[in-house]
Amino acid sequence: MSKKFSLDKILKYLNLQLKVKKQIIIKNIANLDASNIGDITFCSSSKYLHLLKTTKASACIISKPFEKYVPSNCFPIISQDAQIDFIKVSNLFYEKFVLDYVSKKILKKNFIKKNFLNISFGENFICEMGVKIGKNVKIGNNVIIKENCIIQDNVNIGSNVIISNSIIHKDVNICDGSVIGKKGFGFKFYNGELIRVPHIGRVIIKEGAEIGSNCNIDRGSFSDTIIGKYTFLDNQIQIGHNVQIGNYCMLAAQVGVSGSVIIGDNVKIGGQAGISGHLKIGNNVKIGGKSGVIKNIDDNKTVMGYPAIEFREFIKKNMAK
Amino acid sequence: MSKKFSLDKILKYLNLQLKVKKQIIIKNIANLDASNIGDITFCSSSKYLHLLKTTKASACIISKPFEKYVPSNCFPIISQDAQIDFIKVSNLFYEKFVLDYVSKKILKKNFIKKNFLNISFGENFICEMGVKIGKNVKIGNNVIIKENCIIQDNVNIGSNVIISNSIIHKDVNICDGSVIGKKGFGFKFYNGELIRVPHIGRVIIKEGAEIGSNCNIDRGSFSDTIIGKYTFLDNQIQIGHNVQIGNYCMLAAQVGVSGSVIIGDNVKIGGQAGISGHLKIGNNVKIGGKSGVIKNIDDNKTVMGYPAIEFREFIKKNMAK
Amino acid sequence: MSKKFSLDKILKYLNLQLKVKKQIIIKNIANLDASNIGDITFCSSSKYLHLLKTTKASACIISKPFEKYVPSNCFPIISQDAQIDFIKVSNLFYEKFVLDYVSKKILKKNFIKKNFLNISFGENFICEMGVKIGKNVKIGNNVIIKENCIIQDNVNIGSNVIISNSIIHKDVNICDGSVIGKKGFGFKFYNGELIRVPHIGRVIIKEGAEIGSNCNIDRGSFSDTIIGKYTFLDNQIQIGHNVQIGNYCMLAAQVGVSGSVIIGDNVKIGGQAGISGHLKIGNNVKIGGKSGVIKNIDDNKTVMGYPAIEFREFIKKNMAK
Repeated sequence: MSKKFSLDKILKYLNLQLKVKKQIIIKNIANLDASNIGDITFCSSSKYLHLLKTTKASACIISKPFEKYVPSNCFPIISQDAQIDFIKVSNLFYEKFVLDYVSKKILKKNFIKKNFLNISFGENFICEMGVKIGKNVKIGNNVIIKENCIIQDNVNIGSNVIISNSIIHKDVNICDGSVIGKKGFGFKFYNGELIRVPHIGRVIIKEGAEIGSNCNIDRGSFSDTIIGKYTFLDNQIQIGHNVQIGNYCMLAAQVGVSGSVIIGDNVKIGGQAGISGHLKIGNNVKIGGKSGVIKNIDDNKTVMGYPAIEFREFIKKNMAK
Repeated sequence: MSKKFSLDKILKYLNLQLKVKKQIIIKNIANLDASNIGDITFCSSSKYLHLLKTTKASACIISKPFEKYVPSNCFPIISQDAQIDFIKVSNLFYEKFVLDYVSKKILKKNFIKKNFLNISFGENFICEMGVKIGKNVKIGNNVIIKENCIIQDNVNIGSNVIISNSIIHKDVNICDGSVIGKKGFGFKFYNGELIRVPHIGRVIIKEGAEIGSNCNIDRGSFSDTIIGKYTFLDNQIQIGHNVQIGNYCMLAAQVGVSGSVIIGDNVKIGGQAGISGHLKIGNNVKIGGKSGVIKNIDDNKTVMGYPAIEFREFIKKNMAK
Repeated sequence: MSKKFSLDKILKYLNLQLKVKKQIIIKNIANLDASNIGDITFCSSSKYLHLLKTTKASACIISKPFEKYVPSNCFPIISQDAQIDFIKVSNLFYEKFVLDYVSKKILKKNFIKKNFLNISFGENFICEMGVKIGKNVKIGNNVIIKENCIIQDNVNIGSNVIISNSIIHKDVNICDGSVIGKKGFGFKFYNGELIRVPHIGRVIIKEGAEIGSNCNIDRGSFSDTIIGKYTFLDNQIQIGHNVQIGNYCMLAAQVGVSGSVIIGDNVKIGGQAGISGHLKIGNNVKIGGKSGVIKNIDDNKTVMGYPAIEFREFIKKNMAK
């Protein structure tokens, strides 16, 4: 993550014939509003022109018509497809986050026992370097915790669990066979070329949450995937990248939450329900089993059906003679 | 399981200010009708008052209005929430069954080869103490069988399978990556406090049944989860706690059966179908793929849809011009 | 696979009282049109009588009325149920393919490092004899690759993955916990007897494809299961036996594809959608999330719903006041 590239090199990498007058060093990628000196960013929608005008980034990838909005502190990189080129540059900085690999740098058992207070673990525990584990953590057999994960106090992890790029807060319970923090399902085809989106976000599972067995929680692409406090997931649940789930929620088995969905607090979701990408589900919402949610849901609503509608309507529609 | 507590201690644990005149020793928890001297039980519904009147339990947790129905052999524990307090007491007796851990007491390879007739197993077989395995059992790689499981003759177990709290009858086939006997999805929030339901039941898989790959079969809370004889489960199936499935059934991939459902014999369930909790499905029922069953189904019916209706109706409704 | 049986022995095995005049040696099973001298085949439908008339097989299992169509080079085996008897004979030839076992013949680490160019693998890699691995292959922890699999160049395999009976082409990415090449869900009950269909096909995953985490791709029964070039599967996807998916397809999480489905190129399938067995999905088809597809879909169509209908109709039906 401490890579840096000259802007010249980045332009060359993108096959762009732009001239840079003075040497500019790019140290990281960032979103338009979060970027600072040394960052490269992009703007592909007129919705964000107000952010473009005041960006502090040192370079911004844009389409030709947006050039005039780029401030003088920022080098305008004119591109055929700003988003695609930004993903390409992301790959340059975060090559390691494009696909998932395991590390050979594994902590020795003795090191683990000495350094992590009152830890207990089963057979074949594979703990990569850079992992931090709090006190009173219990770990099953064949568990893999990959580099730089943080596991806080009193966490209980079942067997055959794989955790990477994650922060697991205290008192969390993760059951057998779940895969937490894998890269998300993100890629583009552009002019017949496959371009993978690096996933540099993490999974954050907050205090007291529970993840069932054989679940998948993918890490975020440029932001984090978050499971709130005392939120309970049953078995075989799929949580896509960048999803944020609030506190005290309950998801029954086989639920699927697509990428970038935001779910409020105290939400109950029945088994096999699915939520389409990028939707917003309010607080205290109840979603009936097997529902297919394809639009936002306001606070306190109860919905059911495919597509999901208000529960009363669902009953009226289906139970009437 | 050979724990015992004085009734005084239990009342203290529940923060109840009741006085016990003579010393009463409680040795176990039990349902109202199954309880005996030394047991503690509970009654939270007027439906069961007839059972309360004749219970043999030494103590019964009830609400104030039920006090008068408690027989003289039984100490009435007056509670704000009888069910919650009963779960709390269950936790006292069955602390080990609240979350799942692995044991350090693992059988040596030589012991396994000597004691289990004609057994064959792959790499990294983790077999905890107290496990009993019949003859001609074949076990793949990275398999975990946890304490006190019973595996009968001619069972075939794939790789990466985890079995706990289970009895696997003869001729059963369990495929790669399945998790059998994990605790179920049971918990309550009471006055902001998380109360977990201990799962002291088992999974019983009967003769000749087959469990596909990456399936989950949770063990029962206070009763057993049962898969009948020659019942076949495809991949990625979720069976909740306390479910009972009959003989000669066929469940296609990705089916989900919620907790406490009872399914008869010779039932066929199409892929991705789901059954809501506590329902009763008769014998010879056919459930179409992706159906969402939300009410009981009588013997010999064929249903499909979400919510599932009689197959003819489903066709009429959906295929009509 | 180099077994051979006399026709006498096969007839005895099937409990059939037929007399064979001269000694006939059967070396393999085959489909009607693909069979040759030394093969045994079957015909159970009048749709295939034209193939029966010209079969080169040395024996063919048929019902009595079809006897007259069997050519003179072929011995007619008259059976009560030709398909069942053919499956029984398949079991005789392919006993090993009925259930899945692991082999004890495992390659040593040193052998692997010497023979497979620039390979990298994690802990507890179990690679059975007869496996061929190309160059620059990366393999995670606890991976099992079973006998005779072929892994081509630049393949990336996550942790806890199990691969058997498969050919993985170059540049494929397989994520954590997936099970590739397991036997399919195929069996019959005949006169109360369980008859398992051997799965002698393979899984073929073509160049550049990606398989998500905790997916299942079952191998074919008598043909292969195929995933096309640059086809991307998200997590928790179930692909039944004999399925063929084209190139450049995208399947979102929790999709289920039943056995023998054929999917064209450039098809996009939303999360949790399911496709019934034996259907044909054209090129460039889009299937909305959670759809239940129960009939063939022509090229270029967009469908949604359960049962899936044209997208416009789905919108009209569901969004209208």
